[in-house]
Amino acid sequence: MTAVTAPIVHIVGAGPGDPELLTLKAARLLATAEVVVHDRLVAPRILALVPPEAERIDVGKRPGRPLPQELVDALLVELGRAGRRIVRLKGGDPFVFGRGGEEARALAAAGVPFEVVPGISAALGVPAYAGIPVTHRGLAASFTVVTGRRAPGWPDVDWKALARVGGTLVILMGVARRAEIAARLVGGGLPGRTPVAAVRWGTRDDQMVWRTTLAELGAAPVEGPATIVVGEVAALDLTWFRPAGLAAVPGEGR
Amino acid sequence: MTAVTAPIVHIVGAGPGDPELLTLKAARLLATAEVVVHDRLVAPRILALVPPEAERIDVGKRPGRPLPQELVDALLVELGRAGRRIVRLKGGDPFVFGRGGEEARALAAAGVPFEVVPGISAALGVPAYAGIPVTHRGLAASFTVVTGRRAPGWPDVDWKALARVGGTLVILMGVARRAEIAARLVGGGLPGRTPVAAVRWGTRDDQMVWRTTLAELGAAPVEGPATIVVGEVAALDLTWFRPAGLAAVPGEGR
Repeated sequence: MTAVTAPIVHIVGAGPGDPELLTLKAARLLATAEVVVHDRLVAPRILALVPPEAERIDVGKRPGRPLPQELVDALLVELGRAGRRIVRLKGGDPFVFGRGGEEARALAAAGVPFEVVPGISAALGVPAYAGIPVTHRGLAASFTVVTGRRAPGWPDVDWKALARVGGTLVILMGVARRAEIAARLVGGGLPGRTPVAAVRWGTRDDQMVWRTTLAELGAAPVEGPATIVVGEVAALDLTWFRPAGLAAVPGEGR
Repeated sequence: MTAVTAPIVHIVGAGPGDPELLTLKAARLLATAEVVVHDRLVAPRILALVPPEAERIDVGKRPGRPLPQELVDALLVELGRAGRRIVRLKGGDPFVFGRGGEEARALAAAGVPFEVVPGISAALGVPAYAGIPVTHRGLAASFTVVTGRRAPGWPDVDWKALARVGGTLVILMGVARRAEIAARLVGGGLPGRTPVAAVRWGTRDDQMVWRTTLAELGAAPVEGPATIVVGEVAALDLTWFRPAGLAAVPGEGR
């Protein structure tokens, strides 16, 4: 690894929850951080790895009212300019709906050296812990990851086009809009009997899995935050991880 | 982590190449493995972490003639039945075109306890090391990962439908067919000026990046194995990783 300037701000993915899914690099950087700037969804068992003497800044503390992104960008630039060793810790992967690209852009524009440490995205790690391969011979030759949440500045998702692609669909942050999303996918041509799995707190000891179908997703008692997997692979039964709190809702997909 | 039976076969993702992108769990399992069954694309620096006393089985040694998947499945079942501590090591993530689902299915059918350890997929880790966020506000609210390789038993990809989705497209194993794939995507409606980045040996010290456009992809001198990123995000210049061997082909995307 040849870096022109040693990075000061490390934009780090924390993975989906299981602390053993941290990368070696993320663990090393966390153990030597002077400041950790983190989001609300980083698992408590991962935050426990931050040294007690490090400063912690929670920029997503209040549900529904996290710090605006521009202020997070400005905070990272300011901390970086002060020359402190900063870990910007994000749930999952920083470049998968993590606004990591915006932070990297702000740091680059300000001339603050940074690097990106990919993490296991919930989009892949969570289905794996529910025994669901997002690709599988004969079933899915592609997968699409999409956010179910509408937010200012983000193009709205073309659910009809997605319905036509034919691969696995992984929806993050889609629990609240799941009835509407399911209806749009069915409207776009996906059969109502398409298997669906929804996984709450995936990879953690309190992981919960609901198995249902697209037609029944809206009525299924799924609680967020959850990763929703739509497609034939969601009916595969390769369960290997059996946390204490496992729940399952019967459905055609099971 | 409560497991009913301690797993014997660990299906482990090795990540895209940088050994520091191994998960803590993968590193722990590799260090205590009795047998490591690995593919051709696992980076040499990662294989160097396997203890010298462990048996290594390379099931992908000969280019173009790897061990047939059914034989790999049977080998894992046999080794697992013998009660040995096996790491099935795969490049990237085991469930992203890694045939991990088939291996898990064979082990489940044979009653051999297994677990899955997700890895950083090349589909996410490689673009990140090229400074490309696969999602970005205002540019891409979804990303699709697809294989460019046609193989028996895999449904062919509907490139025309993919062209309509509008998010980022990440193509693995698509270098050989890149001209045909680009033509299909343009035929499906994607503009020829759509930015493209191709990254060979991503995350490694010999990483190479080509920046081009969809119209020019077929003629660009890209060498495989490479990860190809198609979409507006491929024009973002958030480069932070500067390996010695970095190359760039000028193009509209740069």
